[in-house]
Amino acid sequence: MNGTIHGVGLGPGAADLLSVRADRLVRGTRHIAYFRKAGRPGQARRIAEGMLREDAVEIAMEYPVTTEIPLSDPRYNECLSAFYAQCTQRLIDLSSAGHDIVVLCEGDPFFYGSFMHLHSRLTGVVPVAVVPGITGMAGAWHATAMPITWGDDVLTVAMATLPEEELTRRIRDTDALVVMKIGRNMAKLRRAVAAAGRQDAAWLVEYAAMPGQRVTPLAEAKEVTPYFSILLIHGQGRRP
Amino acid sequence: MNGTIHGVGLGPGAADLLSVRADRLVRGTRHIAYFRKAGRPGQARRIAEGMLREDAVEIAMEYPVTTEIPLSDPRYNECLSAFYAQCTQRLIDLSSAGHDIVVLCEGDPFFYGSFMHLHSRLTGVVPVAVVPGITGMAGAWHATAMPITWGDDVLTVAMATLPEEELTRRIRDTDALVVMKIGRNMAKLRRAVAAAGRQDAAWLVEYAAMPGQRVTPLAEAKEVTPYFSILLIHGQGRRP
Repeated sequence: MNGTIHGVGLGPGAADLLSVRADRLVRGTRHIAYFRKAGRPGQARRIAEGMLREDAVEIAMEYPVTTEIPLSDPRYNECLSAFYAQCTQRLIDLSSAGHDIVVLCEGDPFFYGSFMHLHSRLTGVVPVAVVPGITGMAGAWHATAMPITWGDDVLTVAMATLPEEELTRRIRDTDALVVMKIGRNMAKLRRAVAAAGRQDAAWLVEYAAMPGQRVTPLAEAKEVTPYFSILLIHGQGRRP
Repeated sequence: MNGTIHGVGLGPGAADLLSVRADRLVRGTRHIAYFRKAGRPGQARRIAEGMLREDAVEIAMEYPVTTEIPLSDPRYNECLSAFYAQCTQRLIDLSSAGHDIVVLCEGDPFFYGSFMHLHSRLTGVVPVAVVPGITGMAGAWHATAMPITWGDDVLTVAMATLPEEELTRRIRDTDALVVMKIGRNMAKLRRAVAAAGRQDAAWLVEYAAMPGQRVTPLAEAKEVTPYFSILLIHGQGRRP
């Protein structure tokens, strides 16, 4: 009997923002896997700190690259593809030996998540189950204590890795906005927000739902910010 | 001492998809409030079924209108505005008497939620706390067992209440799409998806994360569907 591989959404960062289903799986599992950058504890593992069984077997899946090779370089895709294939095989081996495995996922596993690259390779091979999570962007708008969308507002979610003109166009053409994957793209993002004429409405949220949570008007934010920072513009739609 | 009013996200529908924080609040509270259409049990209350204390005092806040008056009629706003003011006063009275109150919210309270209309009226008057939830749209994309966004995909969230041309333009101009508030707008939405040339990629999800969950290719869906149905087009971005 193959074990099941559970991709489990951990939510934005606070331990009590896991779902009840996710909490049970994380606390109950013997085999627990997560992605991290080599040499770092890893954000997913940090969220689960204090929740694991004493006899938990940890499987750290360390990215071979993050920002060392540009996304546009074909070696980036080749390198990551080989890495995901290798992680997949490791999980299949454990599943074949009858073990259930929980894979920790920041936010929601099906929303810009790394687990998706395992999910597509595991589906049809071994049993896979996925548990949704509160997204990082929801953690961010709650950090601002303001609703993100009202009435018929259009919400656009875009990555700061997009070209500057495309970012500007998207920011101009939406009611509410979420921008993720900021990191080194902060200067470009700031120019795009200004070109769209919305700099006074934009907020930067760092470490949402975590101890270092910080909410800053974009105008006062620094040029470099963590990769998982989130920029928000709140919708202003109908409110009876 | 004023009691605290907690706006608590219940997630998309399954009882074990509440966050641990939300679960504790719902099970522990004596005073529990929720919106519903008059004469209906209410979706939020249904999610919390079996979780309430035996001595729980329930405060059902019944919408005076839902679809009887068109949104464009000024009486719609007047009527809802008076209703929210009256609900707010009821909660303030309870808070002033020292009671904590949990207000049940489907999905996430700050994402197109009714609680926002109380939150804006309560803030600065009595203590308010908000607990994020897994959104209904996340429940919907998990129902399809496919990730909604990859790599640099742009996600657009739009309401089916928008004008047809605007809907068409939005559907054409995005990688991934979520459309909510469908109900009677189904025929219009279907025309807009077709005009954008994306009818083969669109899925309709009804009752996500609930017993009657159903996932249907848009081409096979009926003309009328529940108000809280969700239409999805999955992004096809970078996947190493």
